[in-house]
Amino acid sequence: MKRHLISAADLTRDDAVLILDTAEEMARVADRPIKKLPTLRGRTVVNLFFEDSTRTRISFEAAAKRLSADVINFSAKGSSVSKGESLKDTALTLEAMGADAVVIRHHDSGAPHRLATSGWIGGSVVNAGDGTHEHPTQALLDAFTVRRRLIGPDAGLGKDLAGRRITVVGDVLHSRVARSNVHLLTTLGAEVTLVAPPTLLPIGVETWPCEVSYDLDAVLPKSDAVMMLRVQRERMNAAFFPTEREYARRYGLDGDRMARMPEDAIVMHPGPMNRGMEITAEVADSPRCTAVEQVANGVSIRMAVLYLLLGGSEPATTPHAVTPNTVRPEEAQ
Amino acid sequence: MKRHLISAADLTRDDAVLILDTAEEMARVADRPIKKLPTLRGRTVVNLFFEDSTRTRISFEAAAKRLSADVINFSAKGSSVSKGESLKDTALTLEAMGADAVVIRHHDSGAPHRLATSGWIGGSVVNAGDGTHEHPTQALLDAFTVRRRLIGPDAGLGKDLAGRRITVVGDVLHSRVARSNVHLLTTLGAEVTLVAPPTLLPIGVETWPCEVSYDLDAVLPKSDAVMMLRVQRERMNAAFFPTEREYARRYGLDGDRMARMPEDAIVMHPGPMNRGMEITAEVADSPRCTAVEQVANGVSIRMAVLYLLLGGSEPATTPHAVTPNTVRPEEAQ
Amino acid sequence: MKRHLISAADLTRDDAVLILDTAEEMARVADRPIKKLPTLRGRTVVNLFFEDSTRTRISFEAAAKRLSADVINFSAKGSSVSKGESLKDTALTLEAMGADAVVIRHHDSGAPHRLATSGWIGGSVVNAGDGTHEHPTQALLDAFTVRRRLIGPDAGLGKDLAGRRITVVGDVLHSRVARSNVHLLTTLGAEVTLVAPPTLLPIGVETWPCEVSYDLDAVLPKSDAVMMLRVQRERMNAAFFPTEREYARRYGLDGDRMARMPEDAIVMHPGPMNRGMEITAEVADSPRCTAVEQVANGVSIRMAVLYLLLGGSEPATTPHAVTPNTVRPEEAQ
Repeated sequence: MKRHLISAADLTRDDAVLILDTAEEMARVADRPIKKLPTLRGRTVVNLFFEDSTRTRISFEAAAKRLSADVINFSAKGSSVSKGESLKDTALTLEAMGADAVVIRHHDSGAPHRLATSGWIGGSVVNAGDGTHEHPTQALLDAFTVRRRLIGPDAGLGKDLAGRRITVVGDVLHSRVARSNVHLLTTLGAEVTLVAPPTLLPIGVETWPCEVSYDLDAVLPKSDAVMMLRVQRERMNAAFFPTEREYARRYGLDGDRMARMPEDAIVMHPGPMNRGMEITAEVADSPRCTAVEQVANGVSIRMAVLYLLLGGSEPATTPHAVTPNTVRPEEAQ
Repeated sequence: MKRHLISAADLTRDDAVLILDTAEEMARVADRPIKKLPTLRGRTVVNLFFEDSTRTRISFEAAAKRLSADVINFSAKGSSVSKGESLKDTALTLEAMGADAVVIRHHDSGAPHRLATSGWIGGSVVNAGDGTHEHPTQALLDAFTVRRRLIGPDAGLGKDLAGRRITVVGDVLHSRVARSNVHLLTTLGAEVTLVAPPTLLPIGVETWPCEVSYDLDAVLPKSDAVMMLRVQRERMNAAFFPTEREYARRYGLDGDRMARMPEDAIVMHPGPMNRGMEITAEVADSPRCTAVEQVANGVSIRMAVLYLLLGGSEPATTPHAVTPNTVRPEEAQ
Repeated sequence: MKRHLISAADLTRDDAVLILDTAEEMARVADRPIKKLPTLRGRTVVNLFFEDSTRTRISFEAAAKRLSADVINFSAKGSSVSKGESLKDTALTLEAMGADAVVIRHHDSGAPHRLATSGWIGGSVVNAGDGTHEHPTQALLDAFTVRRRLIGPDAGLGKDLAGRRITVVGDVLHSRVARSNVHLLTTLGAEVTLVAPPTLLPIGVETWPCEVSYDLDAVLPKSDAVMMLRVQRERMNAAFFPTEREYARRYGLDGDRMARMPEDAIVMHPGPMNRGMEITAEVADSPRCTAVEQVANGVSIRMAVLYLLLGGSEPATTPHAVTPNTVRPEEAQ
């Protein structure tokens, strides 16, 4: 593994499978009497959030704390950053304070890449969503969810998603989740189909390694997993789409549509769901919908990512060293 | 004990006495060299605050940290909650992230009840104040304060407040503190009298298990404890009361009025105090005023509540299991 | 050492040297496999911030966590403090919750002094910047940086800054950093020169134990360290100075000016830097500029201050007691 996680597109198949396998180990920590590992004791993880995203922030925070890291939350609002401090000076400050990992969420596509390649930071940089670019841990938790559901936790170890058919539906244009998923799922061998109104597809989508369709009903019977993107109402203006009802009629998933999917196929959503918009309550609450599992899997994936990025730089003499195959509960100290 | 703490009205006498007795044990932790217990190591407590309340939030945070829990603060402002995410989706998210307890403050009466009875949450729900409904840990810390002062810490173990006369003064209509206290104090055997202007009493107060009076001076000589409610200036508009000065004259507690109370009687206030409004500085700073003790007792009560709600679900094999009678300092690990 | 740290002016030479020497020990913690000391386990440090200052807050937070203290962040915005609660009631609340140290940042000069001398607080008070008065930990980290750079970490133990020539440049009038530095640096034996436009010098500066000059170019060749103050643009109005460009021309540090300094002399800045204003990018990024080291040193200094203030009140029986000469990594427990 590299030192940073900036883009799902950077991950090789082996990288991705290693993260998924490690996340399986991490998922078991929640079943232990003391739900913590001592692995990152004495390490500091900084959540550097230039955009509000409570869900993503607390997922990383929970992951870091389960690995016994210290967590410092740095919301860029109201800080000297908002008074014009450059990303460079912020980075140098965090580096000087001893941040071992900086988890960054930024409204500008490319900010995490700049942070990672600048030389300003000695620790690891993890992209927690940048502009319309990427959100790699979301794609990893989605892939993890597909593998767990379609292959099974134990049977899945070492496996990729070869031949699985995954459909991504909605506002692909503005979605970093879609972009990261197309990269990662194809790297893992899956066949991806995008379904979206033409106005919500990015220019150049024909060069992406996936199919494109405008007909949701035609694609559903051939999907092992259907990933509904969150509609961002503020972007659904008249230029793109006439009305919310019209959007829901053509691209929303309701019970009738779900019935066209294969029996074992799952419905995914990154949350928070707009019930009645891209997904009906009936579908959202059905056992085929994995939205809640995705949240739980997000903590396991983020534990795996922090573990793999930071654990590797740990001196061999550290008494609590933990390898993916020998994770021990904290009480074993 | 039940799994949740939603309402003081739900507590039996035995529940309430168990919490008070456990809080006595917890109060001793502060005297130890290392002021921490390992009891909730590996547990996650989420403070889910839809209303700002720094005092209550940091009291729960301090309590959870003294029990070695990990604490995640989730202010609903600026989060996807404020963008329209439902309480249900927020709850499912916290559950999926592994929250063992959710401490919720909400502007809507009944929100904690919905959270606890919905099945969305596998962990415990603790009501930290909902609308004008209830604030049960405040009532518990008030009862704890009365018992410590009037009976004494050690002599109080196992005891309730049978026959103690407690007077609650002020804006009962809008006060969840008053409502929770009336329930809990009567459950514990105390005799409660409410003193308020008629416009600040709720409809149906005649069915509450307490006396009502409009004459503070008449009630004071018969009170073992006088609990002054905080006046919320924004609610004291002309419809209810002519002027602040007039309110203070009729319902405020000053030195002259305090002198009418029995010699050992105490003055209580949940804070923050409006000095010069419902209480004069002379009274606020007198040794009979327990406002500061109430804050300290709040941490002990919240430790006891978290301990009793979460400790009970701890597997018997956990090496650090701690029962109320054998709390051990962390260094004993 | 006293119980509080309110003002650099209160420190004797021996106090200051003890803090610098202890900070050298603390700086080594970052080199250990587990970058934590168990010293303040079970202690609670509250960051009470009435002004936003993310950099200072996270520096104290990182310092406290490396010493294993629990940290509670209390931003006074949106709290009952902003609804009119007095500093007294806030202090009594924190005291009652068991705060062992209160790190306070306040817009009013003198607020930390009031907090420390009031008797409201049993723990230690650390001034993290008050109005235009003092910012003692900033001065300590500046002195620490000078000593490390000009004398060397190991050779510096026990040493002061006798005979070192330090120049402070910029808006002295509004700078608590300048005020604290003049006091501390002269206590440590340094010779301080202030360089500022007459309108940005405080009344009474002629009584300060330092030289004053209006000619930066004349002073540079005689400076071992040049400390550039941050320009606060909102204060640079026409009354004080015609234009930003004019300010930069007369009082800014660029490469040409830096070349007039002695070969080993350093350039300091408390951050965040206004590149192009008081300092050019060329100077800011040169190896002679210590801005980033100052941030790292800030964590060491704050660890030393918390250690010395809180460690001394630790009972002798505590098993993890650590003295400055025997700091042990946490895994040695």
